Amino acid sequence: MREVFKAELENIADELVEMAAKVSEAMRSATEALENNDLELAEKVIDADTEIDNMTAGLDQRSAELLALQAPVAADLRVVISALKMSVALERMGDLARHIASLVRIRHPQPALPEGFRDVFLRMGEAAIRIGEEMEQLLDNPGLRGVPLINAIDEELDQLHLRVFALIADSDHGALSPAQIADITLLSRYFERFGDQAVNVSQRVEYLLTGSWVPDLSAKD
Amino acid sequence: MREVFKAELENIADELVEMAAKVSEAMRSATEALENNDLELAEKVIDADTEIDNMTAGLDQRSAELLALQAPVAADLRVVISALKMSVALERMGDLARHIASLVRIRHPQPALPEGFRDVFLRMGEAAIRIGEEMEQLLDNPGLRGVPLINAIDEELDQLHLRVFALIADSDHGALSPAQIADITLLSRYFERFGDQAVNVSQRVEYLLTGSWVPDLSAKD
Repeated sequence: MREVFKAELENIADELVEMAAKVSEAMRSATEALENNDLELAEKVIDADTEIDNMTAGLDQRSAELLALQAPVAADLRVVISALKMSVALERMGDLARHIASLVRIRHPQPALPEGFRDVFLRMGEAAIRIGEEMEQLLDNPGLRGVPLINAIDEELDQLHLRVFALIADSDHGALSPAQIADITLLSRYFERFGDQAVNVSQRVEYLLTGSWVPDLSAKD
Repeated sequence: MREVFKAELENIADELVEMAAKVSEAMRSATEALENNDLELAEKVIDADTEIDNMTAGLDQRSAELLALQAPVAADLRVVISALKMSVALERMGDLARHIASLVRIRHPQPALPEGFRDVFLRMGEAAIRIGEEMEQLLDNPGLRGVPLINAIDEELDQLHLRVFALIADSDHGALSPAQIADITLLSRYFERFGDQAVNVSQRVEYLLTGSWVPDLSAKD
């Protein structure tokens, strides 16, 4: 019985890693689609999000079955509860990558990114890809080393998000169309939220490793 | 033992209702602060969000303890799992109300809302308050009647969100400052996401009432 349980718990952990890999991949492609105004790639990201949603549903179902059939306690129970919480964040990260791709599709053949904003969004995209990869590694090989790293990249994203607003506020009146400003604002928000959700996942890992019951919700929104 | 369990399960349900009430109240005050440019009220919303965060943490802890000590199965287990999921959405709804209040505080003494956008945001605020109240009622007195109602209000919010973008796109170049456009875009997004999260909560209630394991994630982001 114990062996079956361990195997099932490992399945759940493997699926979290797989979801994180898919989410990272989605952000990589969404960023590339945004930078190159690549409609085909944007549509791939949009289609692939259904897969992430289905994985979330599958993971939640297996977590629920494990709770029902095995009634885990202590550290094992914390893993299952964490999986239920982390799947919310991972599913949302997939949505955010999809939102970036959707904006590329809506504006195509016009580029969603105005010229003066390419650099800052290249940096945001790069940071978002990096935080996704670090999250994947953290889930694959949990350890406290990854947590501050993810926090640091999230801080980079927050700074770049502020930089976007500064660029918007400093832009000449009329240089950007109102619709362009709205687009840039949302794009920046999607990247920034992607970072927040990676932090949510890493806080769950931290909570598993340190054995505290409750992560500090006030730390991040 | 069974009696203790039932009492604990009811405590969790009561806390969800209480959280929903606080979230509704936060949205009511945030909307009022936005409409009247009321700094004092905005600050109250910001401060009160800590309470919602703490309630989330407390609820999650009690849910975890219930799983550990009572190992519920079947319908009871689904209630606890749903509570763990719903607390994520409720906590986030508190954040969104806080974000609206924060924007009022940042722009004060300037109003965060430009003149031409008062009407559409009055309607958004009204719909957001209504969806919060319906969600609270649904949690207090679960039944399938409330679910389509919440979906309908969410659809109103989506339409108003599109209306804001149309107003932005149609505004004369230079009539709004770039910073104002960014503010309006984010405000509209906060209201729209508040609706989405209410739908997430109502889907969880639906899933409890209909006994399906997995809500349809593709329905809403």
